[in-house]
Amino acid sequence: MNIKMIIKSLGSLLFIEAACMLPSLLVSLIYRQNDSIAFILSILIIFFAGLIMYQVKPNRSKIYAGDGFAIVGFGWILISLFGALPFILSGAIPSVVDAIFESVSGFSTTGASIIRNVEILPRGILFWRSFTHWIGGMGVLVLLIAVFPSVKADTLHILKAESPGPSPEKLVPKIGKAAKLLYIIYIALTFIQVIFLLFGGMPLFDSLIHAFGTAGTGGFSCMNASISAYNSAYIEMVIMIFMLLFGVNFTLYYLILKGNIKSVFCDEEFRFYIGTFLTAVLLISANTYVNTFHSVWKTIRYSTFQVSSIMTTTGYMSTDFNLWPVFSKFILVLLMFIGASAGSTGGGIKCIRIMILFKIIKREIIKIIHPRSVYTVKVNGKVVNEDTLSSILSYFFVYIFLFVLSVLLVLLDGKDFISSSTAVASAIGNIGPGLGIVGPIGNYADFSVFSKLILSFCMIIGRLEVYPILILFVPTFWKVDK
Amino acid sequence: MNIKMIIKSLGSLLFIEAACMLPSLLVSLIYRQNDSIAFILSILIIFFAGLIMYQVKPNRSKIYAGDGFAIVGFGWILISLFGALPFILSGAIPSVVDAIFESVSGFSTTGASIIRNVEILPRGILFWRSFTHWIGGMGVLVLLIAVFPSVKADTLHILKAESPGPSPEKLVPKIGKAAKLLYIIYIALTFIQVIFLLFGGMPLFDSLIHAFGTAGTGGFSCMNASISAYNSAYIEMVIMIFMLLFGVNFTLYYLILKGNIKSVFCDEEFRFYIGTFLTAVLLISANTYVNTFHSVWKTIRYSTFQVSSIMTTTGYMSTDFNLWPVFSKFILVLLMFIGASAGSTGGGIKCIRIMILFKIIKREIIKIIHPRSVYTVKVNGKVVNEDTLSSILSYFFVYIFLFVLSVLLVLLDGKDFISSSTAVASAIGNIGPGLGIVGPIGNYADFSVFSKLILSFCMIIGRLEVYPILILFVPTFWKVDK
Repeated sequence: MNIKMIIKSLGSLLFIEAACMLPSLLVSLIYRQNDSIAFILSILIIFFAGLIMYQVKPNRSKIYAGDGFAIVGFGWILISLFGALPFILSGAIPSVVDAIFESVSGFSTTGASIIRNVEILPRGILFWRSFTHWIGGMGVLVLLIAVFPSVKADTLHILKAESPGPSPEKLVPKIGKAAKLLYIIYIALTFIQVIFLLFGGMPLFDSLIHAFGTAGTGGFSCMNASISAYNSAYIEMVIMIFMLLFGVNFTLYYLILKGNIKSVFCDEEFRFYIGTFLTAVLLISANTYVNTFHSVWKTIRYSTFQVSSIMTTTGYMSTDFNLWPVFSKFILVLLMFIGASAGSTGGGIKCIRIMILFKIIKREIIKIIHPRSVYTVKVNGKVVNEDTLSSILSYFFVYIFLFVLSVLLVLLDGKDFISSSTAVASAIGNIGPGLGIVGPIGNYADFSVFSKLILSFCMIIGRLEVYPILILFVPTFWKVDK
Repeated sequence: MNIKMIIKSLGSLLFIEAACMLPSLLVSLIYRQNDSIAFILSILIIFFAGLIMYQVKPNRSKIYAGDGFAIVGFGWILISLFGALPFILSGAIPSVVDAIFESVSGFSTTGASIIRNVEILPRGILFWRSFTHWIGGMGVLVLLIAVFPSVKADTLHILKAESPGPSPEKLVPKIGKAAKLLYIIYIALTFIQVIFLLFGGMPLFDSLIHAFGTAGTGGFSCMNASISAYNSAYIEMVIMIFMLLFGVNFTLYYLILKGNIKSVFCDEEFRFYIGTFLTAVLLISANTYVNTFHSVWKTIRYSTFQVSSIMTTTGYMSTDFNLWPVFSKFILVLLMFIGASAGSTGGGIKCIRIMILFKIIKREIIKIIHPRSVYTVKVNGKVVNEDTLSSILSYFFVYIFLFVLSVLLVLLDGKDFISSSTAVASAIGNIGPGLGIVGPIGNYADFSVFSKLILSFCMIIGRLEVYPILILFVPTFWKVDK
């Protein structure tokens, strides 16, 4: 482990975080709700902490894959801790653990909250809370690479560790350029969503908050009742569509920009993603029409929104799905595990992995019938190599294992099983709401400090796809310090 | 698919089943409770059905792996259907679906029951119900091979498809001899358990019933209150120890017979099995001592019995664990998934698979730190080949997938989530009781016909480790009829 290089990299990461706080400072200055001091102080603390770490002189600049993973793992823990400063210093969230939970929930684009009443918070704080979604969605380190494209080629390890999905396809040869391109698409889509929301009569501040929450597939709102507070089918439709758009692999937008629209619709993961969405909508509609809504319009309105919100791992709510029949609720929970597309801002196991898992099972059965034939698994006509298949299979196991282990730990709190297990599923999948006490109109305030830390841990582990955090627990990794 | 050879093989399987019914006929003749006619009729029907199928003349006797799997898949469905005859003909279970459910539950060694009051049933019927556990535990086809060792060498495919666990180690070169050896160990252990139970004052009939239920890790009892009806710590201890013994890989007994005791205690799966048992006992004891029992003796007595019962997938109960705190209940549910050792009569995913899954994850992490090194996964010092690793990984996914799909279907019944999901986990893991309405003092009678069929399906799928049944749904398999 190249520890000095890691510390230096983390230092530059803190510069980025300090800079990211400036817009929130500006908002706080505009609304004058006594939170400006908190932002100025936070920015100074983060900047100087970064400065001290940046002074470390590494013996060699080369980093290996393990170091890249460690930078991502430590980096996310660090920015989450420092990102909690404004909440604490402004007095918005007095408890340190709660503030860290909220900050982790923001950056990991989960959107689970311990705040019972968000509407009384100062606007600067609300802006920062939602802005962390926006930063976290595309990735802090991707941002670092986009801003400083001069960073060495070793950064591929970092990009690989931070990007969701099995293997990030190279958009363009240069990584710095790719990172920049991703951010341009991201900014453009966010901007378009803000325009659409403004058009629907949503105030500018609220539009920004919800565009950040949608773009990062986060789910923080400035309203206690989330999207249902606006009671507008138009706004729900805009957010529903944009949630779906941000759950798509961003590589596809690059293909569209290049005019290659056909290959977007032929993309197998995209088809699986849309197919899963439609199937879930159909099943939930059939179930809730009979049991809950008794109106075709209401059924379609609420089921499409909720399926889009949970599947893209955003977590906005337009109705209290906690009251839906258990069949529909179970489908929502399954969607929490499936999640959005790889290379999107969404979480969960990711559509492409689930799709490949089914292809592997198909192959296992064919193997029994024709034991001597050799079959490969293909995606979009290309053979997926056996190493990737094996890592996808083991990812599924490690995801379920960490889910189960965390549920066990959270159950020590004595809360009911449904609330505890969906809280963990929601945290590890970066969704936000669960069922029971953490349902759409509930929150995470009642959990113990221990459970809140476990859930925070789940959120980071889910966002970084396990290994950048898991590697920090391996003793041999710490020994390789040369 | 060699359909004629499959039908012929199924015919000989029915002869075995008819023969297996003779002891139950004898019991019914001894107790004279009007169920003898049902057995005589059943035996005649099964025998003649077997005779007709056995007349089919195959064009070639060679069978392929796919055919072997199909014989196992069809075979189990067939013997379960015919095995329901005595229940129906005696009037003990008037509903056909219920009778099939009970028969599947018996052969698959699940022990889930739809009978509300077993104590009023005739003894012959009770004997048959428990005897199906005993036959199903070691395998009907293994029995066929043991009885007719003359069957061709192709039977390895059958043994492979019916034996639980990743790859049955060859005990002795000849398969017929291996099958015989397995049955000898099985009979000896069952006999010893009967002696121990008689010694504790349990009547002979009850001792046989519970020895069958223990040996097959089934769980049917002749008492409504299961083992708690005897209220004897001695009997609980005997059954607890024998459940653990029947959850061990039978290869280890062969090693003991050969005097190689050391390698038994060095066996990694055995250590994992015992380790999991002790860990679960420790966690549940700590939790239930504080919340439920407040007595060291009671805590140890009930927790060791229940952990042993669930982990070995037997399903006997000595106390209503439905009343335990949710943390302990969740551990029991996890044990349902882990299950017993490969090559034992128990169900679940099996210890060796779970153990190897953890080893694979360890390797994934090492790969990140040292990307260029090649690491193999070893069990007992031997390298496990990549194909086996891949099939274990995919087995975990297909198991979870079938669990989730079945829960979804059973939820259509409108029952609560805990009851529905643990009913499925219990069925697919061949345990018996679940939580909620299917808890230790509940039963499966209230489920709809549809759910009962789904659950029956789960039981067979769990007992045969998925593929022998899954293969029957593949259209290409049916086409290969030459």
